[in-house]
Amino acid sequence: MPLGERGGWERSESRYCGVETDFSDDVPSLLSFNISTGGFDYVLAPLMNPSYRPSLVEGKGSETQVLPVSGSDLVLAPSQWSSHVVGKVSSWIDLDSEDEVLRMDSETTLKQEIAWATHLSLQACLLPTPKGTSCANYARCVNQILQGLTTLQVLWLRVPLVKSDDATSEGLTDSWELWNSFRLLCEHDSKLSVALDVMSTLPSETSLGRWMGESVVVSGKPVHNLPKASDSNSEGTQRHPLRSYLDYVAYLFQKMEPLPEQERIELGYRDFLQAPLQPLMDNLEAQTYETFERDSTKYIQVCCYQRAVAKALVDRVPDEKASELTTVLMVVGAGRGPLVRASLQAAEETNRKLKVYAVEKNPNAVVTLHNLVKLEGWEGIVTIISCDMRFWNASEKADILVSELLGSFGDNELSPECLDGAQRFLKPDGISIPSSYVYTSFIQPVTATKLYNDVKAHKDLAHFETPYVVKLHSVARLAPSQSVFTFTHPNFSTKANNQRYKKLQFNLPSDAGSSLVHGFAGYFDSVLYKDVHLGIEPTTATPNMFSWFPIFFPLRKPVEVHPGSPLEVHFWRCCGSSKVWYEWSVSSPTPTPMHNTNGRSYWVGL
Amino acid sequence: MPLGERGGWERSESRYCGVETDFSDDVPSLLSFNISTGGFDYVLAPLMNPSYRPSLVEGKGSETQVLPVSGSDLVLAPSQWSSHVVGKVSSWIDLDSEDEVLRMDSETTLKQEIAWATHLSLQACLLPTPKGTSCANYARCVNQILQGLTTLQVLWLRVPLVKSDDATSEGLTDSWELWNSFRLLCEHDSKLSVALDVMSTLPSETSLGRWMGESVVVSGKPVHNLPKASDSNSEGTQRHPLRSYLDYVAYLFQKMEPLPEQERIELGYRDFLQAPLQPLMDNLEAQTYETFERDSTKYIQVCCYQRAVAKALVDRVPDEKASELTTVLMVVGAGRGPLVRASLQAAEETNRKLKVYAVEKNPNAVVTLHNLVKLEGWEGIVTIISCDMRFWNASEKADILVSELLGSFGDNELSPECLDGAQRFLKPDGISIPSSYVYTSFIQPVTATKLYNDVKAHKDLAHFETPYVVKLHSVARLAPSQSVFTFTHPNFSTKANNQRYKKLQFNLPSDAGSSLVHGFAGYFDSVLYKDVHLGIEPTTATPNMFSWFPIFFPLRKPVEVHPGSPLEVHFWRCCGSSKVWYEWSVSSPTPTPMHNTNGRSYWVGL
Repeated sequence: MPLGERGGWERSESRYCGVETDFSDDVPSLLSFNISTGGFDYVLAPLMNPSYRPSLVEGKGSETQVLPVSGSDLVLAPSQWSSHVVGKVSSWIDLDSEDEVLRMDSETTLKQEIAWATHLSLQACLLPTPKGTSCANYARCVNQILQGLTTLQVLWLRVPLVKSDDATSEGLTDSWELWNSFRLLCEHDSKLSVALDVMSTLPSETSLGRWMGESVVVSGKPVHNLPKASDSNSEGTQRHPLRSYLDYVAYLFQKMEPLPEQERIELGYRDFLQAPLQPLMDNLEAQTYETFERDSTKYIQVCCYQRAVAKALVDRVPDEKASELTTVLMVVGAGRGPLVRASLQAAEETNRKLKVYAVEKNPNAVVTLHNLVKLEGWEGIVTIISCDMRFWNASEKADILVSELLGSFGDNELSPECLDGAQRFLKPDGISIPSSYVYTSFIQPVTATKLYNDVKAHKDLAHFETPYVVKLHSVARLAPSQSVFTFTHPNFSTKANNQRYKKLQFNLPSDAGSSLVHGFAGYFDSVLYKDVHLGIEPTTATPNMFSWFPIFFPLRKPVEVHPGSPLEVHFWRCCGSSKVWYEWSVSSPTPTPMHNTNGRSYWVGL
Repeated sequence: MPLGERGGWERSESRYCGVETDFSDDVPSLLSFNISTGGFDYVLAPLMNPSYRPSLVEGKGSETQVLPVSGSDLVLAPSQWSSHVVGKVSSWIDLDSEDEVLRMDSETTLKQEIAWATHLSLQACLLPTPKGTSCANYARCVNQILQGLTTLQVLWLRVPLVKSDDATSEGLTDSWELWNSFRLLCEHDSKLSVALDVMSTLPSETSLGRWMGESVVVSGKPVHNLPKASDSNSEGTQRHPLRSYLDYVAYLFQKMEPLPEQERIELGYRDFLQAPLQPLMDNLEAQTYETFERDSTKYIQVCCYQRAVAKALVDRVPDEKASELTTVLMVVGAGRGPLVRASLQAAEETNRKLKVYAVEKNPNAVVTLHNLVKLEGWEGIVTIISCDMRFWNASEKADILVSELLGSFGDNELSPECLDGAQRFLKPDGISIPSSYVYTSFIQPVTATKLYNDVKAHKDLAHFETPYVVKLHSVARLAPSQSVFTFTHPNFSTKANNQRYKKLQFNLPSDAGSSLVHGFAGYFDSVLYKDVHLGIEPTTATPNMFSWFPIFFPLRKPVEVHPGSPLEVHFWRCCGSSKVWYEWSVSSPTPTPMHNTNGRSYWVGL
């Protein structure tokens, strides 16, 4: 039974516990003892008698030979095989041995065992740890096998969790690097993942951190003197010698803090690639507004705007003039009205008089706005303008210009271009909310095996050159984020433009060992007004705000980074007459090709 | 006039000489002075007034501005523009400057100049040397331009030929490395090549050698005190100040040894990718036999066989038994008969009695064989067997088995599999020609920009996983070749198989600087009998033999190799029930994915 279900209430994700067994040709008893009696979810069982060697089989007539496997496929129902047995490939195999006979025997056995596992519909097989530092022939053979597997099958490569600093000093291979070489030789196949043998000591936290970006199965050995498991034929009432371990793991799992509601709702979005919105070129759908507003009414974002507007109103109109001056406030990109409401509440809170223009280009949202105004009785205060803010001819100028045009990467939904158009009707001394240093974007390099494989699965260049909105989860953040582009509004300079270029250098921690960079996680931060800011950059993120997931810029080919060699990255924001796009590349330690040249794969329409 | 045409007789390839000029808005006079009078083939002329800066252009109304280019497109005929003018992009541009205005001006100017060159149908433009060590923004902008160029246009990036050792000691960038970074950022585009400024001192030969794999334009400055070129308006009879240089270069070119006839014939094959033959699965065409036989009758290959057979005959039959013993010789894969003829000549030369079986599976070649036997009156000596050697039931056993089944990589046309079948009818003490250590294959890492780009042009994985037969020419050989697979015939062991695995380590010379490995050049060597060998491995190649071009194994992504980090390469020969194929990969300095897993892209049918 999955650990999560033991407590009877919903957990983030189900986890399963298996138990590793010796070879047995009585698989039904093995299951009965370990699963029915022991309570484990599956057994990790050798598929072939460990004494078998193909080269020792007598005679040439292999057609009369029967492989010494763990019993006929008929001893279990197909569903039992597939859900309760993980195949353990013979651990003696050594495909990179100097001994050619051993190498050939290993290749034959490995292929026979996987073929048998496939015949049994097993979902996973465990491959033994590569012996020695060289693993190219092993990887070649596994890669041949991977090409023939269905997408439902996976292979786990067993790797001991060795400290990277120990490894270096003793000439051993760092276990992450061994894994990385192996999977790169195997074409970064999504059907290959890693089973980590946790040892008695753990590597440093930064070294361990690299595994966060991988799909990992954890394994460990008993550390106590356990009673020997009796024959699997013994009576079913006997307690499984590892039962205490299982109970303790379940206890730990159930003691975990339950996820907050919002996190549970977003569970399905974890590491799921979404194409960014194009709110300027396309009209948003009701569903999208719903998601944003549900969030904004309940959570922090709308409060931040209300606080910012309130501060701006007080700065603009001193107390003594509160009853006489009316502030003209324009909400550009009003959508279905959340910022109109926030502004009116700020006015009420500060006792300031307000006149509001709600500018919205989406005629469908305008319908809702009209109903809102009527329903709330705002007719005398709020004027609805059904027009693209870039082309509206305002009859008067605004004291305060309020907008919420932020994308996950700040400017990726074209806020700079929109506000360049809208600032025409802001008074020269008017206030823009967000204000100066409005949009700053940030990136950091990440290991993100799942995301990379999902991009790769499309088998085209375009998907490697598209930034995605994604709730990052199984991701290793390899260095603190750094700022990329900054936009200031209003900006009345005639030389101003919205093209940007930034060169960044990331130094990865020296005690982590090598890493693989699959791409960059992107964030934004925005100063709404004075000390009121709003953002998703992890170290300064506005708490409890869920409207924005980060953005992910993939790399066409992951870049290996070694300690001591900085990672040099370039980001461009390019502007054409009808579109805006990003280009990006890595120049060190090895140059990658430019991504998204001329916006050929991804662009935002003006 | 191209240098090659000056002498009036054919040269290997035409070369052209151009002259670099200052900006002039009188292009017709420029051409008249330098080409009609001076005798050069083209001018390298700035396209834009060097004092122009976009940011200095007054007013916003750029629609009223005329770019200060070198005269209207009408001043020359289109064919004159395209064949006599190479555009020189303003050398002041600096796209990686810290100064944003200079950076923006540079980008605008670069794009304007290339657009103007494209309008004029110029075939090439020279880009100035990147300033400083960083070039990512320059590369990004050039890459944008490259995506828009037609395949007839090229850009030359100007790079000074700086010694790599000087560069290291002074913190400068090695010029090859600068070029390599730039082109990798530009997606290894085939429309970008390099113009090398030769300086007063040259780098070491190994460092220079890296340029052999690139498409290079050579440029240099006068080293004498020359008379100043007078106005281009001066009378046409005046001698061009650089005329002596042009004459001297032409003199040097004409003094070069003319190419041997065979090399001239093969000129069209230089760096041209050919799919390897599949003589076992397909029947060869008459054209192919023609090529091989033309070569074999004239050149060394058939003589080698004749010498080998003669030695074997003498070893087999002592002089005193020459008139009494008849040696049974079988030519397996007899084709249209060249080795039958060579064997008979060897018998005549050594006064040995011979009985010949000519075994050939191609029924079309058998027709020719029959006519040959009749024509030469060999009916009593030669028996023609129209059968695949693997399936023939011979009525007697052979003393000598002669075959010529070599591919460029030795075993790539399946000689091991064929001879395994044929050795059934060789006497236990019989002689195989080729004999022991028959087929040894060799590889060496190469830089081969043209070959890589030709493979890339197919835009699929399959072409990157196919070895090609190719007459290597513009190739930098980065390390001496090493042996890969060896096959010994006859081989009567029951455990024998034709699968092979070889791990190789190449250490590149430490004084060369970094290199880019595009793939591997492959060769073979074969011991026909005792000291008679036949092969194409460069250091031991049989002279004057032209039947085989080398083989080229590409890499899906070129691998950068730095001095001190060895290149570790793996090659496999894999055998299935109906096909044989190679797989290959690099594991150090960075792992590449496996190539041709399960023979998915390239295989030889059994």
